[in-house]
Amino acid sequence: MDNMLGRAKKAEAYLKKAGKLTEKCLKKYIPKEKEIPSTLHSAMRYALLAGGKRLRPALAQASYELFGGKQSESINLAMSALEMLHTFSLIHDDLPCMDDDDFRRGKPTTHKVYGEATAVLAGDALCIYAFELIAQTKNVAVVKELAHSLGTKGMIGGQVIDTESEGKPVDLATVDYIHYHKTAALIEASLVIGALLARATKKELSCIREFGKGIGLVFQIIDDILDIESSTEELGKDVGSDLKNGKATYPAVLGLAASKQKALELYNKSLKHLENLKNKNTETLKNIAALIIARTH
Amino acid sequence: MDNMLGRAKKAEAYLKKAGKLTEKCLKKYIPKEKEIPSTLHSAMRYALLAGGKRLRPALAQASYELFGGKQSESINLAMSALEMLHTFSLIHDDLPCMDDDDFRRGKPTTHKVYGEATAVLAGDALCIYAFELIAQTKNVAVVKELAHSLGTKGMIGGQVIDTESEGKPVDLATVDYIHYHKTAALIEASLVIGALLARATKKELSCIREFGKGIGLVFQIIDDILDIESSTEELGKDVGSDLKNGKATYPAVLGLAASKQKALELYNKSLKHLENLKNKNTETLKNIAALIIARTH
Repeated sequence: MDNMLGRAKKAEAYLKKAGKLTEKCLKKYIPKEKEIPSTLHSAMRYALLAGGKRLRPALAQASYELFGGKQSESINLAMSALEMLHTFSLIHDDLPCMDDDDFRRGKPTTHKVYGEATAVLAGDALCIYAFELIAQTKNVAVVKELAHSLGTKGMIGGQVIDTESEGKPVDLATVDYIHYHKTAALIEASLVIGALLARATKKELSCIREFGKGIGLVFQIIDDILDIESSTEELGKDVGSDLKNGKATYPAVLGLAASKQKALELYNKSLKHLENLKNKNTETLKNIAALIIARTH
Repeated sequence: MDNMLGRAKKAEAYLKKAGKLTEKCLKKYIPKEKEIPSTLHSAMRYALLAGGKRLRPALAQASYELFGGKQSESINLAMSALEMLHTFSLIHDDLPCMDDDDFRRGKPTTHKVYGEATAVLAGDALCIYAFELIAQTKNVAVVKELAHSLGTKGMIGGQVIDTESEGKPVDLATVDYIHYHKTAALIEASLVIGALLARATKKELSCIREFGKGIGLVFQIIDDILDIESSTEELGKDVGSDLKNGKATYPAVLGLAASKQKALELYNKSLKHLENLKNKNTETLKNIAALIIARTH
């Protein structure tokens, strides 16, 4: 456990640095507010630059470095695109017709500040702009990976089943489906994209993908637990909203203790996939994995 | 004028054939309703297979053929992606928080049938799926062109200024901005993408782009005119909704007669760009241009 907390601390430092780079790149790539259409650019910047852990960019960077990638425009573009896509999903997820959340990352949600129409379009624009950036890496496999992880067999598929399951009794298989698709798929893709840009081998891609699947699910289980155990102040978003909305979560199906146990099992299983990457320095990813399971916000 | 109507008739036949191909491809590419998440796939298919002119796929195909492209998986993927992206924009445009339209292509709009949450997600999913298909052409320039034409400097930019201008007095420059971005940009991209896939030269790309810009604007001016002069039955969507919503349109700024004159001038200018393509058979595109200006629905 001490080892886990030590690792989590190191990961926080790594994420802080990766977050700063991400923020710098986002500010550079997203058009300025003074450029037309300025309300839209303002809404995009508001949602993007509201803080956040920048976990996906950090995972992409760590995976890229693991496979020998050197700092380059390509990884900067990918890191920015991943954060834009994550933010796009949050903006649409928070809409009144979806989860109807008022706070995100400690600030009023985009539709609360800019209205629903602009929020819908700002989400759309971030999604599309991410593909414009990704196209600049000239790596078509990255475009494909990203699109697949977001689509009906990925994130959006998870969101739909999530919405449809609200207030209904659900089984573990459904919660697994929702959370793997809604959350883990983009986390997995972040790692795979870093590896693709660093020209990892097929076998290496498979290891990093399995690690991503597992740690992505851990991330979501901890999210569900924090929704119950944490405070709005710590979390920066509405707490207890899963319960309020009758959401299909791990604690709702398994209870808190068994959810924590499941997270730990998945965490250990994920690390095994990293161990298959012989002669690679997997320290950073191990640290981030520890942070994901040990985080309190 | 007779010549124009003759050309329009030929274009109708071309569009009918291209439309059938598009429909066949869409049915093949979009996951079946029985695949999970079935409500989402059902909503995507409902919106996509509700008819429509399939103008953008037809333009891409005509441009592809003009530059010597032979029937292939790539052009099929591009045609399908274009129709998905157009449909994505319609679904979001029709939402209650946007134009709040009840009918589209003669049928209730997606949110009327599936609810707002599913409509937002079906739009998102079509947008993302289009990029997944386009990535399969392995042509990264096509991805870039498409994303640019849709983003804040393209379609979405136009939609935002459109929404912001509602009910306000606007000048011709604003209407030009809105309509070039909201409509012409994707029509231009459809033509450019066909040309890119057929490996057109830089000079050829520039000619086809200018033709697309012009004819795209003509399309929107005629759309504005039809919104006033046509009936719901003919048009398959709410008529007079532009006026009702205080939309910035050409007739609102210039009046009907001057709008028709502007469309004709742009049409003639567009054809000049086609004439710069020496030794190419531009008949099909000339026919489609004639249909665009002469259409009654």
